[in-house]
Amino acid sequence: MATTKTPDATRRSERSRRAIFDAALELVGEVGYDKLTIEGIAARAGVGKQTIYRWWPSKAAVLLDAFTAEAGDGEAELPDTGDLAADLKRVLRATVDEFNDPKFEAPYRALATAGANDPELSQQFVIKLQDTGVQAYVNRLGKAKEAGHIAEDVDVRIATEMLLGPFTQRWLMRSGPLTYEFTDTLVDLVMRAVTPR
Amino acid sequence: MATTKTPDATRRSERSRRAIFDAALELVGEVGYDKLTIEGIAARAGVGKQTIYRWWPSKAAVLLDAFTAEAGDGEAELPDTGDLAADLKRVLRATVDEFNDPKFEAPYRALATAGANDPELSQQFVIKLQDTGVQAYVNRLGKAKEAGHIAEDVDVRIATEMLLGPFTQRWLMRSGPLTYEFTDTLVDLVMRAVTPR
Repeated sequence: MATTKTPDATRRSERSRRAIFDAALELVGEVGYDKLTIEGIAARAGVGKQTIYRWWPSKAAVLLDAFTAEAGDGEAELPDTGDLAADLKRVLRATVDEFNDPKFEAPYRALATAGANDPELSQQFVIKLQDTGVQAYVNRLGKAKEAGHIAEDVDVRIATEMLLGPFTQRWLMRSGPLTYEFTDTLVDLVMRAVTPR
Repeated sequence: MATTKTPDATRRSERSRRAIFDAALELVGEVGYDKLTIEGIAARAGVGKQTIYRWWPSKAAVLLDAFTAEAGDGEAELPDTGDLAADLKRVLRATVDEFNDPKFEAPYRALATAGANDPELSQQFVIKLQDTGVQAYVNRLGKAKEAGHIAEDVDVRIATEMLLGPFTQRWLMRSGPLTYEFTDTLVDLVMRAVTPR
């Protein structure tokens, strides 16, 4: 028998989904990935655990959707004003704000460290999440290369890693402050590396 | 009463020290930092746990000494043949070999991820270990700057992070292969960023 959801039921579903995502992100930041459970997420979200299992097969699946919903689809593409350095600085400054926000930072750190310990989780999940971000830079640098703003022989993926690697390392190991000054300097140096002579 | 160690006793101490270091590095790679205990290290090394407590106050202290002994004192300084690019490529190729060696990789990964989760461990220990490596690069780049091989306005610490960040990220997140080709390309790009125009 086919059923059609009423508008009210759809709104209720959407509210539950948001509550589940919020609960999953909060909890993974508090207890870490290993101790995160579907039961815990359900209790925090105020829903039955069957509600979660109906939509997602595992805690990893819930978290992946939660992060994706948080990031929003639009951010998969970098701005292109024609000024590569300015665009990179703008996006990296926004990323500084994000990584200095505990609400984002805690769950992301929990996942990154769980992924570093667990090759399978890393392959299925952490990489998937990171690759979306990395790919956005690779695409933007690729367009700049086509436009002649980046030298022919530059590997745009490695150039991307030169921008994001130092940032992620400082964050993950807390080995230096994440500031606009840091990311601006990084962009200026990478621009010198990639700009045609 | 003053006691003087016989040569035999000194040799025995040195053997115990090496056995304790090997046991600590093996075990942290196998069980992770959280589950590592002085008792476990003592059992693996075939010594009494009092022997360990006599020399080190904590498992962190044992590991720090074990890593330092492993790395050797000599490596705190980078070679300086006058050819910066060649020196950096040589050292990074050696680092590729090291990080592709499970005997080194496993304990270092266990520590890096424990440090990412634990700010205090990170500050006292991971950073201390990493900083020795980072500082060697900063010093080498600093000398190149004095010799006029690096532009006046280049921040040598950030240039170092551009070399080491992408490397560490690929390794930690397993997001790409650690090869000579990768590190050579990285050095070439960083050289373009820092060389005076």
